[in-house]
Amino acid sequence: MRAVKGHGTENDFVLLPDLDGELRLTPELTRALADRHAGIGGDGVLRVVRSVNEPEAAAMAAQAEFFMDYRNADGSVAEMCGNGVRVFARYLHEAGLLGDHGRIATRGGVKQVWLDADGQVTVGMGIPHVLIDTPVVTVHDQQWADSVAVEMPNPHVVVETDAETLAALDLTRAPLVEPGLPHGQNVEFTVALGERHIAMRVHERGVGETRSCGTGICAVVVAAYVRAGAEADGQTWRVDVPGGRCEVVWQPDGEILLRGPAVLVAEIDLEPSWLGLATVR
Amino acid sequence: MRAVKGHGTENDFVLLPDLDGELRLTPELTRALADRHAGIGGDGVLRVVRSVNEPEAAAMAAQAEFFMDYRNADGSVAEMCGNGVRVFARYLHEAGLLGDHGRIATRGGVKQVWLDADGQVTVGMGIPHVLIDTPVVTVHDQQWADSVAVEMPNPHVVVETDAETLAALDLTRAPLVEPGLPHGQNVEFTVALGERHIAMRVHERGVGETRSCGTGICAVVVAAYVRAGAEADGQTWRVDVPGGRCEVVWQPDGEILLRGPAVLVAEIDLEPSWLGLATVR
Repeated sequence: MRAVKGHGTENDFVLLPDLDGELRLTPELTRALADRHAGIGGDGVLRVVRSVNEPEAAAMAAQAEFFMDYRNADGSVAEMCGNGVRVFARYLHEAGLLGDHGRIATRGGVKQVWLDADGQVTVGMGIPHVLIDTPVVTVHDQQWADSVAVEMPNPHVVVETDAETLAALDLTRAPLVEPGLPHGQNVEFTVALGERHIAMRVHERGVGETRSCGTGICAVVVAAYVRAGAEADGQTWRVDVPGGRCEVVWQPDGEILLRGPAVLVAEIDLEPSWLGLATVR
Repeated sequence: MRAVKGHGTENDFVLLPDLDGELRLTPELTRALADRHAGIGGDGVLRVVRSVNEPEAAAMAAQAEFFMDYRNADGSVAEMCGNGVRVFARYLHEAGLLGDHGRIATRGGVKQVWLDADGQVTVGMGIPHVLIDTPVVTVHDQQWADSVAVEMPNPHVVVETDAETLAALDLTRAPLVEPGLPHGQNVEFTVALGERHIAMRVHERGVGETRSCGTGICAVVVAAYVRAGAEADGQTWRVDVPGGRCEVVWQPDGEILLRGPAVLVAEIDLEPSWLGLATVR
């Protein structure tokens, strides 16, 4: 089995090239690959398969040659991942399977990608939906009542704070959100650093604090527009996360573009048996 | 650059074969390799070099053909690692460089290793020294006064508790040890599970809680002998850690043998530039 390790703003993935769709990526294999001590390690696994060879993706094959089969580290299936799709595009490009612009099929639909000469990748992330909900967010004895809730389409609750509070914030447990959104939420804490420049930390539902969250990066920019009472205008915003920096453009047509690094770190040879899945070695 | 990822009871390492001693393993490269999100990920890096090609190890070359150049994940140099040396031996064996028994040069001296047919590796860990110190260990509102302090030669403080306390113990911060040993200490919390069978959790100085600690596994067995007022007798003890199980034998001649799994997970191709060390990719 041949794999590749890569990351986007330190949101990291094990890529499994399986163009012909012959690999049986079980939850057990996914967990073993993603295990940071007994396996390779990653926030998720990205199987690379031709859309025509994957029943789930066959309907998208005319638009997008390759399907991103994204799995969470716990083995569950996921729709989309804004950092993952950039790394996926970088892999296809390096493998000679994608030019500087193309489309990738995901469980969240077909996504456009652009690869820039400087190593950055831009992804069309779709159209955000702002909810009327403004839940109250509580961490220990601190509380924020002026939240903005955004679906990307996964649910986010964004609050603003100051730099000192952001640095000291304890996100080892999920912030309390009342009333919570129906399917839970990622919670983003932001600080305005300057004109169209935001710093954020994020707690992802079911995961914990992470070094980056692609949809969260988009959601905090949408929240900034909502707070300012402004309309999508195609300006470029910078968002700093613990794992690096991305740029976001909210186009007048409603689509959000996410631009950021996508790095391949290593090529990997392994056998499932080496992970203890079939035979003991 | 060719690397291998492996682990022993989930204490994991990036191995760098460099038989001729040509690689410049800087602290920066070590940190980049060990980074779990932007690199390969590991608790440490093990450079594999012929003793004659490494100035530090040349004096041991007549006894041990290969030197284990062990680095902590933070880039610092370390003497020895009971889990690391097993993985190191497994690599040499798989590469055809070591038979079923041999010697490995480390900064902590020459260590004997035996590779068993069942995949387990035994290492001669040297002679433990029991200190007269019995510091008091405190975690939140719980306190243990009956500790045993052991040098392996790195310093350990071992206390006994019950299964319920062990499971609930918060080791996110270093336990308070008063008076602490001169160079700090790893702190082991143990529960007797049956005859010559111990469960333990460990907080390693400067690291935090880990899934396994080879010298700690030896220290808790020594502490059990001390508590029982018994002499080293060559019996086999089992020690369960969060990452698996090892066996320990304290021989009548004073030497401690540590036996446990050593697994190679993957072979890895990478370039320092892919880790962002020379050029941006």
